[in-house]
This record gives sequence, structure tokens and C-alpha cells, in this order.
Amino acid sequence: MTMDEDERYVHGKPQNSFHKAVNIPDIVVYPRSEEEVSKIVKACNMHKVPIVPYGGATSIEGHTLSLNGGVCIDMTLMNRVKALHVEDMDVVVEPGIGWMELNEYLEPYGLFFPLDPGPGATIGGMCATRCSGSLAVRYGTMRDNVINLKVVLADGEVMKTASRARKSAAGYDLTRLMIGSEGTLGVITGITLRLQKLPQSSVVAMCNFPTIKDAADVAIATMHSGIQVSRVELLDEVQIRAINLANDKNLPEVPTLMFEFVGTEAYAREQTQVVQKIASEHNGSDFVFAEESEEKKELWKIRKEALWACFAMEPNFEAMITDVCVPLSHLAELISRSKKELDASPLTCTVIAHAGDGNFHTVVLFDPTREEQRQEAERLNHFMVHTALSMEGTCTGEHGVGTGKMKYLEKELGIENLWTMKRIKDALDPNNIMNPGKLIPSNVCF
Amino acid sequence: MTMDEDERYVHGKPQNSFHKAVNIPDIVVYPRSEEEVSKIVKACNMHKVPIVPYGGATSIEGHTLSLNGGVCIDMTLMNRVKALHVEDMDVVVEPGIGWMELNEYLEPYGLFFPLDPGPGATIGGMCATRCSGSLAVRYGTMRDNVINLKVVLADGEVMKTASRARKSAAGYDLTRLMIGSEGTLGVITGITLRLQKLPQSSVVAMCNFPTIKDAADVAIATMHSGIQVSRVELLDEVQIRAINLANDKNLPEVPTLMFEFVGTEAYAREQTQVVQKIASEHNGSDFVFAEESEEKKELWKIRKEALWACFAMEPNFEAMITDVCVPLSHLAELISRSKKELDASPLTCTVIAHAGDGNFHTVVLFDPTREEQRQEAERLNHFMVHTALSMEGTCTGEHGVGTGKMKYLEKELGIENLWTMKRIKDALDPNNIMNPGKLIPSNVCF
Ligand SMILES: Cc1cc2nc3c(=O)[nH]c(=O)nc-3n(C[C@H](O)[C@H](O)[C@H](O)COP(=O)(O)OP(=O)(O)OC[C@H]3O[C@@H](n4cnc5c(N)ncnc54)[C@H](O)[C@@H]3O)c2cc1C
Ligand SMILES: Cc1cc2nc3c(=O)[nH]c(=O)nc-3n(C[C@H](O)[C@H](O)[C@H](O)COP(=O)(O)OP(=O)(O)OC[C@H]3O[C@@H](n4cnc5c(N)ncnc54)[C@H](O)[C@@H]3O)c2cc1C
Repeated sequence: MTMDEDERYVHGKPQNSFHKAVNIPDIVVYPRSEEEVSKIVKACNMHKVPIVPYGGATSIEGHTLSLNGGVCIDMTLMNRVKALHVEDMDVVVEPGIGWMELNEYLEPYGLFFPLDPGPGATIGGMCATRCSGSLAVRYGTMRDNVINLKVVLADGEVMKTASRARKSAAGYDLTRLMIGSEGTLGVITGITLRLQKLPQSSVVAMCNFPTIKDAADVAIATMHSGIQVSRVELLDEVQIRAINLANDKNLPEVPTLMFEFVGTEAYAREQTQVVQKIASEHNGSDFVFAEESEEKKELWKIRKEALWACFAMEPNFEAMITDVCVPLSHLAELISRSKKELDASPLTCTVIAHAGDGNFHTVVLFDPTREEQRQEAERLNHFMVHTALSMEGTCTGEHGVGTGKMKYLEKELGIENLWTMKRIKDALDPNNIMNPGKLIPSNVCF
Repeated sequence: MTMDEDERYVHGKPQNSFHKAVNIPDIVVYPRSEEEVSKIVKACNMHKVPIVPYGGATSIEGHTLSLNGGVCIDMTLMNRVKALHVEDMDVVVEPGIGWMELNEYLEPYGLFFPLDPGPGATIGGMCATRCSGSLAVRYGTMRDNVINLKVVLADGEVMKTASRARKSAAGYDLTRLMIGSEGTLGVITGITLRLQKLPQSSVVAMCNFPTIKDAADVAIATMHSGIQVSRVELLDEVQIRAINLANDKNLPEVPTLMFEFVGTEAYAREQTQVVQKIASEHNGSDFVFAEESEEKKELWKIRKEALWACFAMEPNFEAMITDVCVPLSHLAELISRSKKELDASPLTCTVIAHAGDGNFHTVVLFDPTREEQRQEAERLNHFMVHTALSMEGTCTGEHGVGTGKMKYLEKELGIENLWTMKRIKDALDPNNIMNPGKLIPSNVCF
């Protein structure tokens, strides 16, 4: 526990987000066990003190801001693997462990956990944001890969959401209710994760296109072909330039698709060929493969750090990161319309998409000292959200609501949905101590 | 709408379940639109009249019993396909459509919906029970295959749970909260389902074993091999006898595994060979294949109707159907221990398992006129549930809670979980009109 000004300041500042901190926590605590979390929450509930659970702080939408001061619960000391069940392909962990550390731990067993959000993200934070990542196109999102949770509720009681069976129809799906609740319904203290076998074989392929629409069309046609790709990532020419700059690379600065195929050796090859054919039908060129393990790792590392690479172009700028997602048939149009708007803007903007899911990000760089630039970034974000909503899409495919996306929820989901969320929140956290001011807009009332 | 005694009686009697009807609905209504459902629910809420939503009535645990009379809302006239999006691989349907009719509709488009509970089950009922079936081992359960829902809440308001994007992190996962809520939180009036491509090629294989333990071991080893089977079904010698009797077949009456492999032709073959090798290492024999479409369809139809086949052995008996699920590493032991108990019982019992998921059913036949036989059936059910719970399993892998499994929930999930469910139920249905007396045990209080 600390009341040190610096520590409180670090925990109050959103590390990876363009949201401004208006306040900092009054205290930061570092529990080491579920019982300690329970005691902290009980005390806060009694005195109606706000709580902000805190993991890797890689979230984008101001999720960890201490809007009203209070207690920041940093979960990173609770980072143990409690039990690995190789035969059941599941693992029981504490919330503070990172997905990268977990995968290092699992590798000798031939297993891995297929969610890959920001480097540094913790399993607890990933549950709380319902994150996904590049592998979601094959393995699903956080929603699909959690067997059960332990949760300290707002009154300090400890709840188990489900048994360890892979499937169950026993009662309301409280596991899924907690996944994506962004710390507003309880503090996650234990997680049983479903694991996957490391594939026998994998191939990474890259391919260049004259236009971003061609690249998007290939991603869509690949999904329709019925082929089970494990990754389909789209990057535009500006993003490739950033990557070249940051990593001292020499990739062709054109719209690019990155694929991964997994399975038995023969199957991975068979799939690669089908996709190569699709790409060539849409003006794809320079289809290159990587089969060597180090080379593949490097490519995904570069992709994963694409956001940070952008700062190589504008070191002192901030980045507004957008995150819309639409039904696949609308993706090419959404990307084309957005790209036009981005190219016309005075700001530097890059495009990155988990194209197989219809999920599309842009990074909009702006000078934080210039208000008109921030406003222009906001305008672009609005434009893309409203375009996505008009296509039956969502304002956030994977980053979550935090404080940044609250204003779009009513339009996307309707007021009846917000009423229902508020009823649940009021029922489970009557004193509104759990991460107040996030996820549910404050103007929702009955 | 009808107050006809016969209709009310039919709707009050659980069609596929050993639970006794203690009451029948006062009235049965057949709405044709969401607006009609909304009006009915509003009226019931005003007058605090109980509602039981009613789909295909194939549920097992007394889910559709009208414990307190009231209004039975039969959803089967709302059975239209509202929109098919071939490019997005999703379909928007009304709740009363059956999964079999839906698949007939989808076949010409090369698509299917991969959930197969009881023949006659409706998509609405399948959402409400969070069902699964033989294909869940590959495609997941109902939880994983629904994009969004429309729900008439207890106050009659209509809520949309999510956009039509494949993934979203916008707010609490109300879709999943409704899936498995068994009509206790609202009436589902619209569903967007995620569809799958009909596989290019599939192979069905059957294999015989000297003991049920050998068969279970092969199912487990197959899952560990990393091979993506689409079905692994286990049947014991008694179940095979019932199938032979009911279908005039001549299958060897020994423990049997039924597999399905899908993919490209080469891939399906490659997988079949790996599994054949695993089977032969565990005393498997008579590995036979079916590749012809009609033959495969017949095999799965026979398997799907296995429950009803049991009545060929004892036409005037009733069937208690058990439904436990455990982590895979415990399945062989659970099945062995259960089989010993079943063999020692004076009742006729069969075993059917979705073995790839660790989900295990038995059908226990008893004479409903003889109380000691019902009690013996109950005893066997208790035995299996408690054995599964001692192995970190669940009392219901897929059939749900209804009235039959309420008594096991506290042991499985703990009182804090039940409190949370009750808080949610009270918040969303303060007059307790939605399917009262189901899912949440009545003795849960704070
Ligand atoms: C370079 C980069 C790339 C990224 N790529 C992706 C991507 O591909 N896909 C994707 O989905 N996201 C991505 N993200 C976003 C981010 O990594 C995810 O949102 C991640 O899930 C956040 O985890 P965290 O541990 O950092 O959570 P934090 O930022 O610490 O917290 C996030 C939220 O969860 C709550 N929380 C944290 N721990 C707990 C707990 N134990 N119990 C209850 N609530 C808790 C917090 O209160 C907060 O509301 C990226 C971010 C960066 C910086
Ligand atoms: C031969 C046989 C085989 C079976 N095999 C399987 C199997 O493999 N896997 C499996 O999971 N199950 C299986 N079942 C069980 C059963 O088919 C499933 O539980 C199924 O999901 C029930 O659907 P239904 O339409 O019949 O629902 P119903 O029995 O009509 O209702 C079930 C519950 O859902 C509620 N409900 C119905 N419609 C709505 C709605 N629109 N809105 C809100 N609530 C609603 C009802 O109130 C009730 O609580 C089998 C049953 C039989 C008879």
C-alpha cells in the first residue's frame, strides 16, 4: 500500500490512452491474496469509497482513470499460476499474470492461450475488457476462452461463477456477465482459462495490394472460402511506413495483408495455396511466406507493437485509437469511406484491421498541445463510429467502453439495454463503489 | 389464444420429462409478433400473473411446467426467417422456428446452424436453455453461436442485446445473460445466429470396444491429439441394443464410439487415420466408415433419437435422463464408476455421452406406477451428480436447471453465486412473473 505521490500519479495517468487524467487515486494498494482484496472491498463498501481495479494499464478508453479519487487496487502482485491441468487443457491463474508470461510458462507443455491484446496486459484486465486480438478470428474472444472466475463482489463476498467443466447449463452465465464489465461489478481474483495445443505447423504469409479495398476484399473472400485462417491482419501504407521507421525494416509501403495458417503441415500448406489464389484474383502481389520460427515471431511482434511504431513518425504526439467493428459484408465499404476521410485530414493516420472479424482500427496522431488537432482526431473517431453504427456495427469491437465510448451506447444499443445494465449495476453494487463513472452513462435513469 | 382444457393440459404436461405436472396453465396464447408478446407481458406484469414461455417442449428438467397456472406463451407461430445474410454468415429468425427447419432452409445456401438438441426444439428454447448437442465439441454451445437477441423484458419493454457485429466489447454481455436464463428474465422474440459453411467433405466412423472405459479413453486421447473432430459420441451396449430394437438394425451390442471428421477431403481422411490408430491402441475393432450422404444422415438421426429408442425396450416406462459434465481427465473414471452402479441396479439403464466435452448422459427407465422404481432412478441420478461435483464438474452440462436441478446448485456454485442470480432476477423481474419457481431455488434469501 502506498500514498506516495509519484505512484498515485502513475496509477492515475492513463498509460496508453489519449484521455486526460482529471484526478488521481488517494491511495494505491497491492493485495497479495483474494482475502486481502475481500477485506479492502468490504472496507471501501462500508465507507462508500470508490475503487478502481488496475491490471496492466494497457486499456485504451480511460478505463483505469480514478475519476473520483479513492482506492486503486493494483492486481499485479497476484500473478501466480495456481494449477495447470494439462490433460484438461486448462489453467487456473491469478488476475495479475500477463498473457505473455503465461504463454512462456505454457510453452514447454505444448500449450498456449490464444488472446493477444497489448503487450503488458494482464489476464484480469483482459477479462474485464472482454478483449480479443489477432487470433480471435480462429479462437474467439476472451468471452469464449474462460471457464470460470472468482470475483470479489461489491459487498466483499467471494463468488465462484461456474464449475471447471468445459460446458455447463447450470444457472445464469455469470462468467460472461463479468467478462466485459470493466471493474464495475466486482474484482476478478481467479480465472480458469481454456488452453489450446500449440499447432504442429504454421505458415505466415504476407501479400501486397494496390488499394486498401483490394486487401479488404481478399480478407473477406478468405473468410467466405471456409478456410480456417488463424490470423488475417490488414495494414495500410502509412502503418507500414511507421513499422519500417520504428523497426529499421524495408517492407513495401503499400496496403498489406498478413495471414497465419495452422494445422498439420499438409493442411497449413493446402490452405496457403487456396488463399494465394484468392489474393492473385484481387491484384495481390509479392506473396511471401515465413515458416521459420524466429522469423514468424518477429513478424507478429512487429505487428503487435504497430501502435507504438506510429510514434516513430511523430515522437511527441498522442494517438487516438479507434475500434469499430461491422458485419463482414460492410467492412470493405467502411474501410474505403474511412480511408478517404483520413487521407483528406491534415493529421497523420494509419489503418490496422483484424479484418477477418470485421474489426477495424485507425491510429490518429495529434499534437496534444493543439486543441484543434485533438478536435480533428475526435471528429474522425465520430465519423467512423457513426458510419459503423449505420452498418449495424459496434462502436467498440474489442477495446471496451471505459469513459470514451459511453456516449455512443444509447445509439448502438437502445435505452432499454442501458436501463437493464443500470438495473444490474444497482443490484450488485448499490453504493456505486466499483469503478464509478465508467461503462454506464451517468444520465441513464428510470 | 385458448382456454380449451385439452390444449392447456398438453401445454402443462412436460412432454419429454419425468417431472410430474402439478398444475396446468389457465390460458395458452399464441402471439404472432413481438408487439403482441410485449402487450401480453405488460398485462401480466400489471396483474402479477405468472408467464411460462413455451417453445418445442423438448426440455428435460420440467422447464415448461406451469407451477402456478397463469399464461403459457406458445411461441411456435413466430417461426419466420426474417433476414439471411449469406455474406456475413448470419441469419435473423423468430424464436419459434425449429433447428431442423432452419437447417433445411439454409442448405441450398451451403450454410448450417451447428446446434442439434432434441428433434422439435426451437431456437428460442435453445437459447433459453443454453443447449448444446453432438457438434458442440467443435462449434461450441448456444452461448458461442448467438450474435444478438431481442427480448421482451418483464415490464413489457423490448430490448436489443447487441449489434450485428461478430464481436463487440460494448457493455455488459446481456446476450449471454439471457442465454440459459430459462424464461426467467424475459421472452426472447428475435435471434441473430452465427452460421457455418457446410463442410466440403465429412467422414463418419464407428468403432467397437470391449469395455466402456476403453471407449472413453479413446475419446479423451482423440481430444488430446489436437485433431478437430466435429463429433465424438459414446454409446454403451445397452443403448446399442435399444437402437437395434427401435430401428431394426444389427449393430454389434458392445460399447461404441461414433466420430465425425470434417474439412477438405484430404484433411478429413488424414484425421480419420490418426484416430483409427488411437483406437487400435486401445483395443478398438471394426473401425467402419460412412462417406455416403444418406448413410451418414441416417446414422446421426438414429443417434439423435437414441432417447426415444429406449422406449422400444420398455414401452410403458418413463425415462429419467441424467446430464453431468466433468473436466475431460475425469470422464473415464466418472463413466466407469457410474456404469458399475447402473449395472448393479435393477432398472434398465443406457449410457450416451458427448465424450469430447466430458458430458455424459444416462437414460434410466422406470415404471412410473411403482414409487420404489422412481426412487431408485432418483438415487442413481443423485449418485452421478454428486460424483461429478466431487470432480469439479457440473450437475448439468446442457439440459439446464428447470425444477429438477435447483437442489444441486448451492453445492456446485456456492451461496454467493445464488445470491447474485437472485439479485439480478429481482432487479429485472421485481414481480416474479417470468417462469417463477424455476432455476433459482426458492429458499435463497439475503
Ligand atoms: C499496443 C497495444 C495493442 C493493443 N492491442 C489490442 C488488441 O489487439 N485487442 C484488444 O482487445 N485490445 C488491445 N489493446 C488494449 C488492451 O491491451 C486491452 O484492453 C487489455 O485487455 C487491457 O488489459 P490490462 O491488464 O492492461 O487492463 P487495465 O488497463 O489495467 O484495465 C482495464 C479495465 O479492466 C479493469 N480491471 C483490471 N484488472 C481487473 C480485475 N482483476 N478485476 C476487475 N477489473 C479489472 C480496470 O478497472 C479497467 O476498467 C492494445 C493496447 C495496446 C497498448
Ligand atoms: C430426444 C432428445 C434429445 C435431446 N438432445 C439434446 C442434446 O443433445 N443437447 C441438449 O442441449 N439438449 C438436448 N435435449 C433437450 C432439449 O431439446 C433442449 O433443452 C432444447 O434446447 C429445448 O428447446 P425447446 O424449444 O424444446 O424448449 P422448451 O422445452 O419449450 O422450453 C425450454 C425452456 O426455455 C424457455 N423458453 C422457450 N422459448 C422461449 C423464448 N422464446 N423466450 C424465453 N424463454 C423461452 C421455456 O420457458 C423453458 O424454460 C434433448 C431432448 C430430447 C427430447
